[in-house]
Amino acid sequence: MNTSSPSMPDPASDDAAADAVQANAYGYPAVRLRPKVEARAIRHGFPWVYADELVTDRRTQKLAPGALAVLEDAERRPLGLVTVNTKSKIIARMLDRDPAAVIDQAWFEARLSRALAMRARLFDAPFYRLVHAEADALPGIIIDRFGDVAVIQPNAAWAEAHLDALTAALQAVTGVGTVVKNGTGRSRGLEGMAEENAVLAGAVDGPIAVPMNGATYMADVTGGQKTGLFYDQRPNHAFAARLARGAAVLDVFTHVGGFALAALAAGATSALAVDASAPALALATRGAEASGVAERFATRQGDAFDVLEKLGSEGAKFDLVICDPPAFAPAKPALEAGLRAYERLARLAAPLVAPGGYLVLCSCSHAADLHAFRNASARGIGRGGRKGQLIYTGFAGPDHPMLPQLAESGYLKSLVFRLD
Amino acid sequence: MNTSSPSMPDPASDDAAADAVQANAYGYPAVRLRPKVEARAIRHGFPWVYADELVTDRRTQKLAPGALAVLEDAERRPLGLVTVNTKSKIIARMLDRDPAAVIDQAWFEARLSRALAMRARLFDAPFYRLVHAEADALPGIIIDRFGDVAVIQPNAAWAEAHLDALTAALQAVTGVGTVVKNGTGRSRGLEGMAEENAVLAGAVDGPIAVPMNGATYMADVTGGQKTGLFYDQRPNHAFAARLARGAAVLDVFTHVGGFALAALAAGATSALAVDASAPALALATRGAEASGVAERFATRQGDAFDVLEKLGSEGAKFDLVICDPPAFAPAKPALEAGLRAYERLARLAAPLVAPGGYLVLCSCSHAADLHAFRNASARGIGRGGRKGQLIYTGFAGPDHPMLPQLAESGYLKSLVFRLD
Repeated sequence: MNTSSPSMPDPASDDAAADAVQANAYGYPAVRLRPKVEARAIRHGFPWVYADELVTDRRTQKLAPGALAVLEDAERRPLGLVTVNTKSKIIARMLDRDPAAVIDQAWFEARLSRALAMRARLFDAPFYRLVHAEADALPGIIIDRFGDVAVIQPNAAWAEAHLDALTAALQAVTGVGTVVKNGTGRSRGLEGMAEENAVLAGAVDGPIAVPMNGATYMADVTGGQKTGLFYDQRPNHAFAARLARGAAVLDVFTHVGGFALAALAAGATSALAVDASAPALALATRGAEASGVAERFATRQGDAFDVLEKLGSEGAKFDLVICDPPAFAPAKPALEAGLRAYERLARLAAPLVAPGGYLVLCSCSHAADLHAFRNASARGIGRGGRKGQLIYTGFAGPDHPMLPQLAESGYLKSLVFRLD
Repeated sequence: MNTSSPSMPDPASDDAAADAVQANAYGYPAVRLRPKVEARAIRHGFPWVYADELVTDRRTQKLAPGALAVLEDAERRPLGLVTVNTKSKIIARMLDRDPAAVIDQAWFEARLSRALAMRARLFDAPFYRLVHAEADALPGIIIDRFGDVAVIQPNAAWAEAHLDALTAALQAVTGVGTVVKNGTGRSRGLEGMAEENAVLAGAVDGPIAVPMNGATYMADVTGGQKTGLFYDQRPNHAFAARLARGAAVLDVFTHVGGFALAALAAGATSALAVDASAPALALATRGAEASGVAERFATRQGDAFDVLEKLGSEGAKFDLVICDPPAFAPAKPALEAGLRAYERLARLAAPLVAPGGYLVLCSCSHAADLHAFRNASARGIGRGGRKGQLIYTGFAGPDHPMLPQLAESGYLKSLVFRLD
């Protein structure tokens, strides 16, 4: 772990000395918006500065990734304390409207307490996303909580630099004994950071049992995907489960049993869970056992499209079919191909739905907005020879808040169709 | 009630006789799309033909409002059985893809059974919107069910013409003893129909007790607004109620106690319910009594904006504030003024939210889409001097399905913000 703070100006540097006049008042170096860049959005809560909006002189270029700085508008009026990463397209992220803020354990504790208050109000048990980055005023930081265990994803350079204070604050505010760092995932690459996992406090002893929607899921917080379990689908799992009583269920891209276990807990007569990952399916099976539904649960390992085609050629029918794939269109260049993939999935899945049954189609693609995804889904259903009603549109749960100014962060869409 | 069917061609008419060659095969007159109008959308499930898309010759002009006809594409290929109303901008609505369909009690029973199957799966008790017009394959017809009582809104001319068969089918399929016709509302005007209420079967003896989200609401199905109670907000009431434990609640535009009673049932310490309608507030109070929460419930009659301004000047604070106004932007010409009204409402409501509290903002305006409404809301919150996270976006419940091809029918939006 990096124990020297990269956020302090280096007094030995001539550049830093020359800037001292600007930086002095707050003890941080200053960075400045370019002459024609409007500060209005930032003043109204937009949390990011893009690379082409900032004066990137030699001095700014020298700032270590994750350095703290005071952001000024073009007229040198301070806008707040930011973290700077010249390697990222998001070159600065707003940390605090107070340019004199000190980023220490107490600062993290205040942010974490704010985040915790909302989750404690909403959830009966301490299993949720505790921190959802910008919207929880901790830019680039994701923290998922699994009872006594918390998993941090420090996806921005500043978080890595302050990981000690964050970890201490996390333990102080929540009382968790174990803190895991999950340093994988796309975002870190965009920040120029390497992949790295570590147990920062306590110890992890195998998968953790997570109660959710009446089922028990097994989350592998050290070896699994992302933070071991996706909490974001919770309300959509719950809605699908309301349709599951007495139903034969097909759950494609099940991961650790996402929709399938909730459906079985709600009274589905059977669930076939499909995933390409054998370790994920093994966890799903353990979850089915822990949920007491193992005798109604079956898995099939394989490529989802292949399995759907095979089931289709066999004439298989299910009362409830779910497709919850990984992001086919994570970013704009992949949008067209991604939408075609969503359409193809819907086209293959729709014929597997029994008449009067239900089809759940999900997208976690940032680039595919609700409108585009809904159209692709409807097109696929039509090309699959079916017609239907849209009865539900769901997003990520409330432990995944959004900044209103950052509507893009509403990445998850879940659509439920009833098919004739 | 009109007991002669306006759907049969009049054999005494020369025009009808001349058309007999076209109409014969199915026993209905034919109407035809204009030469350049694409039938593709209709073939793929779009349910409407606009006035400028149809050949409106003398013969078509003579069709009685609500007449049945076979819709043909420009090449005279049949597309299905439609109902025609030359007084409406929506000149034809698709009733059945089968141009030979017979619209009788059995036909209505099949449609109603399909609609009932979905509701019976989703809801524990028979209180829901049973038919939501086009998406339930009954264009222009709304039916809300309150246990043994059903309220029909025949908002298209054909429904009025077939009301006997519909009523009989409704009783046969659901077993309801009482059927009420509610012939008020904007849609009837667009169809050139007069306002008219009636009890079609059974009898209504005062307001009906409706269990929903742990509370009991009183619905006045003969004298109230629309069908006496709005079922569409059910999932949004439920989400807001999760935030209500120990909270002081302000519910503006409460109608018959919508958000307030659900919040009190979930443990709110107090709720102040505001509405301009004294009869609505009287029903809300009766609902509070029936829910056993009357001692924590208070009402204030008045204009919502006035009440909000007054509460603001008094420095009042609530942990949970809800604004669920009538449609400020029901149609496109009202969009700009409507968005300003939503913004003003947010600006007045936000300062009443205690720090760390919650603000629920709703819109049932067709013309204001989610994006526009969210922006207006966020702007209003900002102008009210507050910042917040968006933790929930909800739509109408699943008993208000949509045709994927008719995304406009997603009129209801409910946003929940947590304010710093």
